[in-house]
Amino acid sequence: MTLKINLERVQNDLYALARIGYNPDDQGIYRQGFSQADMEAREWLTRKMEALDLAPYMDGAGNVIGRLGTNDHKALLIGSHLDSVPAGGMFDGVLGVIAGLECIRVLQENQVPLKHAVEVVATSEEEGRFGGMLGSQALTGQLTLDWLERAQDASGETLRDAMARCQMRYHHAMEAARDPKTLVGFLELHIEQGPVLEKTHMDIGVVEGISGVFKWIVQFKGKADHAGTAPMDLRSDAFMGVADFAHEISRIIDEEGTDKTRLTIGRVDLKPGYAHTVPGEADFTLVGRDMSNQVMKDLADSCRKVLSSIARRHRLMFEYEEMSWLEPKHCHPDMIGLLKKHSEQLGHDTVVMPSGAGHDAQFFTDIIPTGLLFIPSVGGVSHAPDEWSHWHDVEKGCNVLLGTVLELVADQSA
Amino acid sequence: MTLKINLERVQNDLYALARIGYNPDDQGIYRQGFSQADMEAREWLTRKMEALDLAPYMDGAGNVIGRLGTNDHKALLIGSHLDSVPAGGMFDGVLGVIAGLECIRVLQENQVPLKHAVEVVATSEEEGRFGGMLGSQALTGQLTLDWLERAQDASGETLRDAMARCQMRYHHAMEAARDPKTLVGFLELHIEQGPVLEKTHMDIGVVEGISGVFKWIVQFKGKADHAGTAPMDLRSDAFMGVADFAHEISRIIDEEGTDKTRLTIGRVDLKPGYAHTVPGEADFTLVGRDMSNQVMKDLADSCRKVLSSIARRHRLMFEYEEMSWLEPKHCHPDMIGLLKKHSEQLGHDTVVMPSGAGHDAQFFTDIIPTGLLFIPSVGGVSHAPDEWSHWHDVEKGCNVLLGTVLELVADQSA
Repeated sequence: MTLKINLERVQNDLYALARIGYNPDDQGIYRQGFSQADMEAREWLTRKMEALDLAPYMDGAGNVIGRLGTNDHKALLIGSHLDSVPAGGMFDGVLGVIAGLECIRVLQENQVPLKHAVEVVATSEEEGRFGGMLGSQALTGQLTLDWLERAQDASGETLRDAMARCQMRYHHAMEAARDPKTLVGFLELHIEQGPVLEKTHMDIGVVEGISGVFKWIVQFKGKADHAGTAPMDLRSDAFMGVADFAHEISRIIDEEGTDKTRLTIGRVDLKPGYAHTVPGEADFTLVGRDMSNQVMKDLADSCRKVLSSIARRHRLMFEYEEMSWLEPKHCHPDMIGLLKKHSEQLGHDTVVMPSGAGHDAQFFTDIIPTGLLFIPSVGGVSHAPDEWSHWHDVEKGCNVLLGTVLELVADQSA
Repeated sequence: MTLKINLERVQNDLYALARIGYNPDDQGIYRQGFSQADMEAREWLTRKMEALDLAPYMDGAGNVIGRLGTNDHKALLIGSHLDSVPAGGMFDGVLGVIAGLECIRVLQENQVPLKHAVEVVATSEEEGRFGGMLGSQALTGQLTLDWLERAQDASGETLRDAMARCQMRYHHAMEAARDPKTLVGFLELHIEQGPVLEKTHMDIGVVEGISGVFKWIVQFKGKADHAGTAPMDLRSDAFMGVADFAHEISRIIDEEGTDKTRLTIGRVDLKPGYAHTVPGEADFTLVGRDMSNQVMKDLADSCRKVLSSIARRHRLMFEYEEMSWLEPKHCHPDMIGLLKKHSEQLGHDTVVMPSGAGHDAQFFTDIIPTGLLFIPSVGGVSHAPDEWSHWHDVEKGCNVLLGTVLELVADQSA
């Protein structure tokens, strides 16, 4: 007999959490890391776990963890985050936590014999209010004391102060690191937060990894001129440089990229920025992504050459600064295979795909076998009050997770 | 014997005016319309004119006018403006006033018999602090009381209040209108404020007219998406629409424009404007110029079609608003011919060219024969402290003006 999750319980839990931090004015959820609402959600989860005898605790980084099984065994971690962006939706992060909790409920009520413990982890501060993914970085030993001391949010509040207001001491976050030798792996169910599954009519996305990403700030400097007196052929129009580069992006991807490549110009600042003045300076961001570090390097090389050639053509000075370069993270082939197998066994249309957004899973890929599962987002919308995933998709995602968990932890010999 | 201007007198006057409103911190001249410095400059000029027995007066719009000759004759007007932009230079406007004054000095000291009076006009508020060219509009009868009552500067100060602080009553500006039947024409010497004369090694530009100009605010609306999760082919990237349009500008000019066409994107605002978000909205300005109203219409039609087609290609909504449409103004063929003849007679390399910037002359083209003369601007720079024109070019410009004035007003029969 195949075990199945109970959708109604999952729905009840998701709706219960959706009320914590809910703002009736814009229907958004405001549960930013270490806010009062965030701590309230952690308290709610702790009580839920206590009711299931999971001996919950909050670690030094604010992660709430409950465990099924004894401390003698290695543990499989299942989880995601409880915090939200400002005006966020009700599935992002929370789904992965509740799905883990539901898997444990199914294991418990069916008294499944276990060869490994199972832990549900509700990570803290994944949305990057303080510029990182605090909970996952803490669990995987990827924090530094220096960063903890310096981190602050956009309003200037430090992580230290925000944690202190929650009766936490920031340096205890260093103590949250888990020994990889005690862990079987990490599994995360998340909404896609993008349009691919919906547009391609897929039920389940098995994530092959988190795209690497580089961010450049590029500057073209030309000469600000009167838009009436400067003839077209005597201009050094910095914006025309940006436009010409943007126009080459699709060619650069065709030549150097893959179908997983993304190149985005998200911000453009023109100076002086007057209608009647030829822009003398243009500063813009270029964000590149791919699943292959080598492809990212090839894309960056090509962008550099194209930018440089456009600068010469338009008589511009060209400079860029690489603000960040994060290499791609790969999910474990075994986990990808398991998730895909269980999804297909349940008859779901399944695709192996990259994740362009960051997730808790990306830090676990560095230390233990990690799997990440997507269900469709309606309209690709996320980080907004109208984020939604259909309940039948939630159910499918939870059951694929459950099947995989069972294969990993059930003691077949028992 | 050919009469010549006295460069030293012109230099002395220009340097004297450069001290009025001078800011030693940035070396800029701050003589905005109806500022204390502006009124001080008008007072300085009035005293100069008094010394020459020109019976100077300030009209109801703040124009300072001095006259050589009797009231029995029609008058030739020579002039430009005394006000400056904030942090402006020492030639813009002032040159045309002092050149006119110098012409009168030469006429006086050589006791040239006149068939027409000659007036030097120092117009008020040409730089558009209050959104127009008050002095020239007043002189040519192109003001309305309604506009005078509503006009205000960027800080919100009304023209009424600014004039009241100078002991002037705004509605008196309506009384400054001159009867065209009493006027022979209007001549203005100005710096080019652009790079053309310098780059093409020309001494003198005879202006054929002031380009017409239209200003659009264009909006592309697409869909803001996560730059990682949204595949390139599923985006509605508003900025890519702007970039594609900018890329077509040179083709549009090749197909519909002339060598006098200018199309400029000076301001671009992306929303939300984050590096990691595909821009969901782009608002930008498009300013078009040409010497032909029909060409302007053809350019506008073509821009509309291209914008619309790009919107479809990128799945964007496209809207635009025409903020203004000013038709081209043409200098009088007789004045163009006279200025060109006198410039060439003096051996100067002379070109007939459009003016992309606005000048006092543009309002006079509507009522009387008008001529406008340019001398080179070093580096094309203007509206800045390092605005400069070489003294040998100033001398050439003044002498071309003088020759033309002599032909227009000297009584050859006397």
